[in-house]
Amino acid sequence: MFENVAPFAVLICALLALAFSCYNFFSVKNKPEGTDTMKSIGEKIRKGAMAYLKRQYKTVGVFFAVMFVILLALALFTNALTIYVPFAFLSGGFFSGLSGFIGMKIATYANTRTANGAREGLNKGLKIAFASGSVMGLTVVGLGLFDISVWFILLKYVFHLDIDKIMAAMLTFGMGASSMALFARVGGGIFTKAADVGADLVGKVEAGIPEDDPRNPACIADNVGDNVGDVAGMGADLYESYVGSVISCGALATAAGLGFKGVLVPMLIAAIGIIASIIGTFFVSTKEGADQKSLLGSLRRGTYISSILSAIGAAALIFTLLPENSNVFWAVISGLLAGVLIGFFTEYYTSDSYKPTRKLSGSSETGSATIIIDGIALGMQSTAIPVIIIGISIIVSFFASGGSSSFAHGLYGVGLSAVGMLSTLGITLATDAYGPVADNAGGIAEMSGLPEVVRERTDALDSLGNTTAATGKGFAIGSAALTALALIVSYTDKIEGLNKDILNLSITNPAVLIGLFIGAMLPFLFSAMTMKAVGRAAQKIVIEVRRQFKEIKGLMQGKAEADYEKCVDICTKSSLAEMILPAALGIISPIVVGLVLGVNGVVGMLAGALICGFVLAIMMANSGGSWDNAKKYIEAGNFGGKGSENHKAAVVGDTVGDPFKDTSGPSVNILIKLLSMVSIVFAAIVVQYGGLGLF
Amino acid sequence: MFENVAPFAVLICALLALAFSCYNFFSVKNKPEGTDTMKSIGEKIRKGAMAYLKRQYKTVGVFFAVMFVILLALALFTNALTIYVPFAFLSGGFFSGLSGFIGMKIATYANTRTANGAREGLNKGLKIAFASGSVMGLTVVGLGLFDISVWFILLKYVFHLDIDKIMAAMLTFGMGASSMALFARVGGGIFTKAADVGADLVGKVEAGIPEDDPRNPACIADNVGDNVGDVAGMGADLYESYVGSVISCGALATAAGLGFKGVLVPMLIAAIGIIASIIGTFFVSTKEGADQKSLLGSLRRGTYISSILSAIGAAALIFTLLPENSNVFWAVISGLLAGVLIGFFTEYYTSDSYKPTRKLSGSSETGSATIIIDGIALGMQSTAIPVIIIGISIIVSFFASGGSSSFAHGLYGVGLSAVGMLSTLGITLATDAYGPVADNAGGIAEMSGLPEVVRERTDALDSLGNTTAATGKGFAIGSAALTALALIVSYTDKIEGLNKDILNLSITNPAVLIGLFIGAMLPFLFSAMTMKAVGRAAQKIVIEVRRQFKEIKGLMQGKAEADYEKCVDICTKSSLAEMILPAALGIISPIVVGLVLGVNGVVGMLAGALICGFVLAIMMANSGGSWDNAKKYIEAGNFGGKGSENHKAAVVGDTVGDPFKDTSGPSVNILIKLLSMVSIVFAAIVVQYGGLGLF
Repeated sequence: MFENVAPFAVLICALLALAFSCYNFFSVKNKPEGTDTMKSIGEKIRKGAMAYLKRQYKTVGVFFAVMFVILLALALFTNALTIYVPFAFLSGGFFSGLSGFIGMKIATYANTRTANGAREGLNKGLKIAFASGSVMGLTVVGLGLFDISVWFILLKYVFHLDIDKIMAAMLTFGMGASSMALFARVGGGIFTKAADVGADLVGKVEAGIPEDDPRNPACIADNVGDNVGDVAGMGADLYESYVGSVISCGALATAAGLGFKGVLVPMLIAAIGIIASIIGTFFVSTKEGADQKSLLGSLRRGTYISSILSAIGAAALIFTLLPENSNVFWAVISGLLAGVLIGFFTEYYTSDSYKPTRKLSGSSETGSATIIIDGIALGMQSTAIPVIIIGISIIVSFFASGGSSSFAHGLYGVGLSAVGMLSTLGITLATDAYGPVADNAGGIAEMSGLPEVVRERTDALDSLGNTTAATGKGFAIGSAALTALALIVSYTDKIEGLNKDILNLSITNPAVLIGLFIGAMLPFLFSAMTMKAVGRAAQKIVIEVRRQFKEIKGLMQGKAEADYEKCVDICTKSSLAEMILPAALGIISPIVVGLVLGVNGVVGMLAGALICGFVLAIMMANSGGSWDNAKKYIEAGNFGGKGSENHKAAVVGDTVGDPFKDTSGPSVNILIKLLSMVSIVFAAIVVQYGGLGLF
Repeated sequence: MFENVAPFAVLICALLALAFSCYNFFSVKNKPEGTDTMKSIGEKIRKGAMAYLKRQYKTVGVFFAVMFVILLALALFTNALTIYVPFAFLSGGFFSGLSGFIGMKIATYANTRTANGAREGLNKGLKIAFASGSVMGLTVVGLGLFDISVWFILLKYVFHLDIDKIMAAMLTFGMGASSMALFARVGGGIFTKAADVGADLVGKVEAGIPEDDPRNPACIADNVGDNVGDVAGMGADLYESYVGSVISCGALATAAGLGFKGVLVPMLIAAIGIIASIIGTFFVSTKEGADQKSLLGSLRRGTYISSILSAIGAAALIFTLLPENSNVFWAVISGLLAGVLIGFFTEYYTSDSYKPTRKLSGSSETGSATIIIDGIALGMQSTAIPVIIIGISIIVSFFASGGSSSFAHGLYGVGLSAVGMLSTLGITLATDAYGPVADNAGGIAEMSGLPEVVRERTDALDSLGNTTAATGKGFAIGSAALTALALIVSYTDKIEGLNKDILNLSITNPAVLIGLFIGAMLPFLFSAMTMKAVGRAAQKIVIEVRRQFKEIKGLMQGKAEADYEKCVDICTKSSLAEMILPAALGIISPIVVGLVLGVNGVVGMLAGALICGFVLAIMMANSGGSWDNAKKYIEAGNFGGKGSENHKAAVVGDTVGDPFKDTSGPSVNILIKLLSMVSIVFAAIVVQYGGLGLF
């Protein structure tokens, strides 16, 4: 009985999240927007962001249409795919895109309102920004679980598939979400950094005007970028992680013979996490005149309460549903803890409250070269601890779930730890997504000429946003690793189902080895592509801003208005053009490698990309984050302060770090999952035609 | 009969190489040294370099003594090691160190003599510099093959071991060579870059005096650094690659059941390569007034002739010795070709004759941040082709050697391709090692105030050296990958010999997976350590140079002499102190991972380090090389030329690239082999005690 109720309970939790998110949406939207200038600036940012997103969806739409036709043809005319796959592919892409869209919609409403709230006080600003973040957080988990539960109910109660087939079909729909996420992250990431770098290079460095100065023609594009990159891109990204972790864990459950119950556990843990997250949001608030520490405490309180509630709920669930396997509870806990710990160490390496970043600021004393060398070294060094944490978490979840007697049970545990890590995504994402809103609010305060105190308040919110973003990145990276891992194992299970004798995953198998080499290289090549794309797009902005400074009379004196739209337009066009190639790399590589090296080569490639991408993503995120905060630390008056030679050196570091931390680094996380998803969808074809007759 | 003659024939070829090297040594030494100033500067560099090397050997000696005692104890009191291992360990370390020592000895004689030769003409300079390079090249291969053949003869004809046991014992002696190589590369690499960066930061950037200006207190240290890093470090490094490839291939032969003949083939191919290299050296010379292209043509002629001779010899050998397996000939060819191709693409990405580096120079237009971003992206992008080349080379050598019917035969082929790649090391290393000599000659010409035309000639030689160094790096990286691969397979063979049922190398085995993660992280952590070490050491030089500029009256006016020795001393002390930790990482990691995760974890770690280290090493080498040449391209008058803002931006790139290409990048190559070597030596202990009872 309970088992037949459970899928509907999951659906109800998903709807609850969406309802709560909807309520928050309108409560934010009903807040006053502030002065006319603020309204007009907000309008410009909103329009620019929407225009970008519309065109992005149009471009991506073409891709989805083509892929849909290909998948449909494969489903109809071969037995490589079931008929559900093309539709699941579409739904994954649609909801992933929708998550980003809603998140951005609310962020572009909340930015002016947060600035306006900050005019009255810090707490008001925080409340609005955080409410907007929670819209995003709950939309992502709500839509994710909605998509999963509806498909599950459909396949089970309408099409009456048995559980193995259900999970096999559902596993493939992650590819839609991953593709969408990659496009959103890469496109948005290129947009935001091209605008940022372009605006800084001409505005700050050449013309010597401050950040967010309305005279800078790229300043609106810069603020639009925060929304399309940090909000819409992140929403699509985490939607994909969330959905991927739940369905891959479900697939591992069927491989372990845990059947229906085993599949329900990750879905129910996610549902419990939603309730825990909603409760947690009520604990976020702070007193007026609070310092940064108490602000952070307030956000942390919400997260910790959610985590504890989530853990208690998961325990109750597992002891009820899997009494003979109750130790898998420790897998969930190890995932939750690993997420928190990786987040903490991300903060340790990137926040200027700790030694590494403070020391990095000091490297500016000997110029930009040394701050670059030391920043890269810092990022490289910071990869050690997360690797060890992930390693321990794999060991704990594997053996706690009975891995020593059954491999499949142990791997199911690893899948559960990824679900555990993401179970409280509703609130961790809320604390993360509020950052770009605060950042935008600061920009609006500056551009509207609001009193200094407002900017100070939004700065306090923003700087806090950097810390929570670090934690959020820890979760994004850690969960990507565990989810990709679960997906790789699901892939091998799928292959075994197709042809029992084809797998030889020994590292000494040349196909595996060459796959490993290629996999290790892919994140590097992908990062090169995205970084170069930022460079090219930024170059165009530089030229345009220089042109406007030269040609628009009275601009520098503040007497004429810059042509903001032109910059937004350039960013839009170039980021959309530039996102195609990196995304194509992610989709084509598994197919080509599969056809040449066969399935064992594919597994090698997936493993190589996972391990190398994980390490590279951490390095880029942490180098970038640390350079950013080292610059801020100097701006706070250390090592000579703003305008000093040290500051100039730190600005170089920050600029190098921009594409590291906001374009290439986070995109690599999606790449490693997309590779797995594509491999899974095309598994049957590779089994049949792959390997050139050699492998 | 032939089989019993062959080992002695190999020994004779080794002695021939040493004799020829000896002849060249004295013919260089007998050349005139030039003016008194030149003599005195040469003397200073020589003294500094020798003082460094002496202290390095003392420090390393302590390590070797401790390790010897540990290994001896293990051999005497447990059955984990045979009694030959501790002695083989010592001999490997000794000859690796000796290779570096002799190479540096001749380089420090040849530098003044090359400068003096360049006073008379380009060809004279080239002849001396190349003769010095060939001393190094032939010493490395001569000592390597000497060590191998003497051990082989000893174990076979004195101790009468059978072939399996001989190779098992010999396999472990690579650890001595690897340890020595790592110390030499890391120590020398830190020395050279600390001096270089330190000298540039204060001299060029702050004081505005040219490179190699005698007023710069760090200029002697800088030139000493070229010798201890680029010469002694490289000698020890390639000695290790060379020996490693031959013995690991021999070990694979026994695993494939190819017995005595199979073991002789790689040794004989190496011996043939020596003869081919000696012949090739006679074809290196050029006409007076030759441009850079014909200089390069002259060096290439020597290399190509050696390669062709080597290929013909290898064919004859294989068709005679392994007629039933004659296809393995293609493995040798694929290795040779892969080396040449990787070298070409290294040149393509790093030379300013090609588009990538020219475009990188253009990135300086928008400042140092963009040249850094684009340089990193260039390095990342440049990893794709070498990975594909290595992949194809593995496929060809695996299947040509019968891999489709016997795995072991195929893997033997992969081992042979590494030997093929390194067979002409005698001459490729000669063309590589001549670079630092030309570089030093230029420095001496500058410091001795020789006429402009001399500096122009040494510059022509030096710039050519950069190109040949790129090719050399291609070989070093490619052969490191193939050798490490062969070592990993040898390790698994060894484990199988110890305990048939312990191996489960499937990628889905958690121990393998966690091992892969840790392995992927190690090259990053190692690079972070070495880069930070350069930073710290350079910092000390900066402070010292600033102090001397301030305190020594008349120094800037050229009236007083700088205290060069102090800078050499600082570099020596700090590089020796700083080399300990990274080296320890390489030695301790396999033991700790083995004890915690067991043998399967070790294999995962080795594979992870191999693939990730390979990609990272290429990236660092090529980013660094390209920045260096982008700067030179600007200095040649493009994009504003010397002293322009663009040039300043390019100098930042070059400075960042220094530790990339000369410290961390090349050391990673050794790291991946050292990890394998240590794993092999401690295999029996890990089999017995590793895995915590879980794995």
